[in-house]
Amino acid sequence: MPVNLPAPTLSSLLPVKGIVLGTTEANIKKPNRKDLLVMQLSPQATVAGVFTQNRFCAAPVIVAREHLASGKNIRALVVNTGNANAGTGEEGLAAARTTCSEVAKLLDCKAEQVLPFSTGVIMEALPLERIVAGLPACVENLSSDHWFDAAHAIMTTDIVAKAVSRQVSLGGVTVTVTGIAKGSGMIHPNMATMLGYIATDAAVTLPLLQQMVKHACDASFNCITVDGDTSTNDSLILIATGASGAPALSDSNHSDFQLLQGTITEVATLLAQAIVRDGEGATKFITVTVEGGESVAECKQIAYAVARSPLVKTAFFASDPNLGRILAAIGYAGISLDVQRLKLYLDDVLVAENGGRAYSYLEEDGQRVMQQGDITVRIVLERGTASGTVWTCDFSYDYVKINASYRS
Amino acid sequence: MPVNLPAPTLSSLLPVKGIVLGTTEANIKKPNRKDLLVMQLSPQATVAGVFTQNRFCAAPVIVAREHLASGKNIRALVVNTGNANAGTGEEGLAAARTTCSEVAKLLDCKAEQVLPFSTGVIMEALPLERIVAGLPACVENLSSDHWFDAAHAIMTTDIVAKAVSRQVSLGGVTVTVTGIAKGSGMIHPNMATMLGYIATDAAVTLPLLQQMVKHACDASFNCITVDGDTSTNDSLILIATGASGAPALSDSNHSDFQLLQGTITEVATLLAQAIVRDGEGATKFITVTVEGGESVAECKQIAYAVARSPLVKTAFFASDPNLGRILAAIGYAGISLDVQRLKLYLDDVLVAENGGRAYSYLEEDGQRVMQQGDITVRIVLERGTASGTVWTCDFSYDYVKINASYRS
Repeated sequence: MPVNLPAPTLSSLLPVKGIVLGTTEANIKKPNRKDLLVMQLSPQATVAGVFTQNRFCAAPVIVAREHLASGKNIRALVVNTGNANAGTGEEGLAAARTTCSEVAKLLDCKAEQVLPFSTGVIMEALPLERIVAGLPACVENLSSDHWFDAAHAIMTTDIVAKAVSRQVSLGGVTVTVTGIAKGSGMIHPNMATMLGYIATDAAVTLPLLQQMVKHACDASFNCITVDGDTSTNDSLILIATGASGAPALSDSNHSDFQLLQGTITEVATLLAQAIVRDGEGATKFITVTVEGGESVAECKQIAYAVARSPLVKTAFFASDPNLGRILAAIGYAGISLDVQRLKLYLDDVLVAENGGRAYSYLEEDGQRVMQQGDITVRIVLERGTASGTVWTCDFSYDYVKINASYRS
Repeated sequence: MPVNLPAPTLSSLLPVKGIVLGTTEANIKKPNRKDLLVMQLSPQATVAGVFTQNRFCAAPVIVAREHLASGKNIRALVVNTGNANAGTGEEGLAAARTTCSEVAKLLDCKAEQVLPFSTGVIMEALPLERIVAGLPACVENLSSDHWFDAAHAIMTTDIVAKAVSRQVSLGGVTVTVTGIAKGSGMIHPNMATMLGYIATDAAVTLPLLQQMVKHACDASFNCITVDGDTSTNDSLILIATGASGAPALSDSNHSDFQLLQGTITEVATLLAQAIVRDGEGATKFITVTVEGGESVAECKQIAYAVARSPLVKTAFFASDPNLGRILAAIGYAGISLDVQRLKLYLDDVLVAENGGRAYSYLEEDGQRVMQQGDITVRIVLERGTASGTVWTCDFSYDYVKINASYRS
């Protein structure tokens, strides 16, 4: 079950002026569930995105990149779950393009103004006919109040929908930021089997919006790992409709830009952490923080070595303070450390120093922390001033169960 | 259960002239099991080794390296299971040194002529008193016929002992190569929670022996992964006693050198594969071969990305030909591939080409191969002539079970 992750409520999600959303049950993989989403954007909206670094990137990722690069203003997004349209060759590309042109017909725009997204099983043909058949119902369903349904329509193995809203005042005008995301397995930076959509009714020029989405992604989705697998379909999209009437942001030094960027990064971080809290089979949410490093890069490299070690993750699942496994993972992270100098803490409990177990360490203290749902592993290197954090979850029977039966 | 891995038989293991072995039940972690081993070498034996790259290397690894570097001829090895003496700081180092000096007293040599090894749980103090108390029984038990007992005395979570013998004729003299190894989890190159000891009664000069052990290790233990975790204690030791009477090998271009090196590499490869076949929770033995690459390094990088992907490994556990997960792992391996050009085979079945599923591919063919205990994943890049192979196993409920309860 998700770790300390309450499900979002309908009333907690605030509409974003300039955006309407519609969903339907298109029977893409399973009956009786919302699996198709159309988002329509107002004409003046700016849209920026970051995408998976996987060389086998999915057909919709290729098409979405092309359409963003075309320079035309984006008018709609279409998202299906149940099939990733990845590893599908030329036919998959054609299917993604057809999806866009069918949405464009219904919304009276051009295919290049539509961004397609898919998530689900890889290397099976996209059931294009069912998607095309479902689109009119999505369009009929369009409403600014449908963020809650949209968050549900993009889920795969997620147990809980991921959605959050925040508001902030820019130049005396209240603007809203609402984001939804999905993802549970195949989660590792650059990025995850992860789809994220964050929208605001603030007005932001395209170059600044691109900067903002990169900043938010680096501080959130690029700091999580569930199983170390990087998916073919990861996408994070940031939309600024400008419909709030707040003055347009075109200067990254302006305090309002910093304020909005901070809010968007907060929303992205909450969504990214929600993905880990709902990680496949997760029973623990683990923050791995490395401090006192020579660079952020080396801190994150060590944090990732710990966060993706199956031996560390199974020890957390067992609530067993078998903390030598953390030392072993630090040791093989590929950094030339003097291991005598580092300190390892579990929450506030000093576990290891001087190359071994701390004299003050009591097994019962480690055991107490290991019982918690939220646990912080803190590693202090004492060789510099940089730090880095990664969020992960434990590794349980259910991870294997979910992934051994995903297609059935 | 181990995958297509018969247990070694007493009669299959051949003595190596110049080596005697003795074991005892020292109650290091659990009662009623052999957990302490002493190997005594004849005075003229040469000894070479390769060790873990983990920065948190264990105390016995530090001491063994020192003693090998001291230039004194090595007269004995001492191995305990049940405790890794890793992450144990200065006290652990002192315990490893005391173990050597106690062996030296019993065998009338110097402490620097003894190499210590430990395997088991990390970051708990070595029970030195029990080890010292057990040493006289090991020495009393010394016999050239005790390779079978020795293979059992070094096991941790291994289900089956790993041991193999081969013979080869050098200059008309029959020489023997016998090796034992242990390891099951925390298996990843450079190297593994892996201890390996290979001995021959051929005579090999020290520089050539060092070259031979590196060659054998690169082709065997450095090609396996169970869980991607690199241990603190990995050691592979190669001993040449010279007691067979075969002429000493001092020229790496001599055909006898090549013959012996081939035999030693074969023994190392069988032992390394046995570790994967007995991988924690393993139900499948998977050979991942990448061909047609620009370099061996890129081939192995891709093979490792596939071999350590939890999603790929759980799909193999489920006998589910969810082969898109293999494409995804190839895609994030970090090589700038043209994915349109590669071909993916499962044994002889062409699964994917042209960036997607092969037209000729039938799910039933994939399903048939997935049912097997031994499976080959073959990836043809078509961009060069290099190739590389990695051996791994699947990821099952039992992996989690074993590692969530290892200390109890």
